[in-house]
Amino acid sequence: MQKVETTSHIVDPFHTDYKKQLSWETLGVDLLNAAENHASKRGFGMKDVNDVNYTWVLARLVVELNLTPIVYQNYHIDTWVDKVYSLFTNRNYAIRGDDGVVFGYARSIWSTINYETRKPVDLIEFHGEKFEEYCAPELPCPIKPYSRIKPLAEADMVKYHKVTYSDIDMNGHVNSMKYLLHLRDIFSLEQYRQQRLRRVELQYQKEAYYGQWLQFFMNSDDKDVYDVEICRTDNKTDEKGEVCVKARLIFE
Amino acid sequence: MQKVETTSHIVDPFHTDYKKQLSWETLGVDLLNAAENHASKRGFGMKDVNDVNYTWVLARLVVELNLTPIVYQNYHIDTWVDKVYSLFTNRNYAIRGDDGVVFGYARSIWSTINYETRKPVDLIEFHGEKFEEYCAPELPCPIKPYSRIKPLAEADMVKYHKVTYSDIDMNGHVNSMKYLLHLRDIFSLEQYRQQRLRRVELQYQKEAYYGQWLQFFMNSDDKDVYDVEICRTDNKTDEKGEVCVKARLIFE
Repeated sequence: MQKVETTSHIVDPFHTDYKKQLSWETLGVDLLNAAENHASKRGFGMKDVNDVNYTWVLARLVVELNLTPIVYQNYHIDTWVDKVYSLFTNRNYAIRGDDGVVFGYARSIWSTINYETRKPVDLIEFHGEKFEEYCAPELPCPIKPYSRIKPLAEADMVKYHKVTYSDIDMNGHVNSMKYLLHLRDIFSLEQYRQQRLRRVELQYQKEAYYGQWLQFFMNSDDKDVYDVEICRTDNKTDEKGEVCVKARLIFE
Repeated sequence: MQKVETTSHIVDPFHTDYKKQLSWETLGVDLLNAAENHASKRGFGMKDVNDVNYTWVLARLVVELNLTPIVYQNYHIDTWVDKVYSLFTNRNYAIRGDDGVVFGYARSIWSTINYETRKPVDLIEFHGEKFEEYCAPELPCPIKPYSRIKPLAEADMVKYHKVTYSDIDMNGHVNSMKYLLHLRDIFSLEQYRQQRLRRVELQYQKEAYYGQWLQFFMNSDDKDVYDVEICRTDNKTDEKGEVCVKARLIFE
């Protein structure tokens, strides 16, 4: 079986922002589904692991778009496994348009965890040697890897969000792309009017659950790079909780 | 050309709620896209009207599901134009599964408005006689039409929401399915654990814009039927603003 799997989409009018550009959460979900499509065809998809009481969780995601697809444009997502470590696997993506256009690339890191204990398993042991056969480290993914995001101070809190029903996915925790939605909503429409979001980095550290509060701490060294920590607390408080997600958003 | 157009989907793991059931907002967007797919193939889609500075807006939507699709199930959306009036058109939907399963039906009312003046146009005059040729009033849509939702009192406010960047779509106003998201988030995870959402009615009256506040007023005559009014105000206030959306949600 080939190492790369491609899924094709069209930017439909109801998955764009006010500038008619593909929404980043939609692209994010498309990347997750592209991964699932690739994995399930090779016997290690969500359903395969769910059936034995395990699940895939996303540890890190970085997406960089030199060009944002706009309404009615086609976009094609190529995805492949880059490497497998014991507890993690790297999966990369190329996001292409028609006629050789390259919108951008993405990198992700995943682990398989036990549904009850939430502990990660050894991937080769769990999925078997076949998992390694699909690795394609020779394929290029010419975007920088994850940044090191420094801890932020309590003084930098910019918003609260109480976790709602729609934030929760079938893994029982706040969905990875919902964090992205809430992150993007920190910024004003005016900022999006003047600048384009070019790169998003997400580092998932702990899970947040229904009824918890999310605190958003933000800092910016210059006007285009924003570091954010999303922390969870059981009650609404100014005191910094446990970090769930670290993120960096880069505008241009 | 045939009168009915069908689009097919699979419930992917990232468009479900914590019970692995298809999220209603995803289905809602699928219904909008099914409409767009049907209309654009017949020369009166979003792009056709946008090109001459008009746009389609949804005036009413009712969706009733006797069975909610769950993860990995296929669902097929049939859509057709039921009737055309001067300023409005009725579009219906059947939501089917594989092997003759019927998940439910939907009804919608649309108008074409001028992008600048926001005034509706005469549909036959604007789109031409061909529009009427596609009407299929003979096709069944066996769910009740829209209810009459009575005005609610200021005392019934259950939440505020400040309109964010991600709420706004390419029409420059709060997206119709975002209201549904915020409506569904009024209810607790516990309620969804005990009950299933069976029917949603949405009546769009006025547009809300970036930076405005939405107030949610809710009333329930019995424990399964919830009437909600969503009002817009320029500032955060308890005083009831102008009604944007009237809604009814029925659980079972």
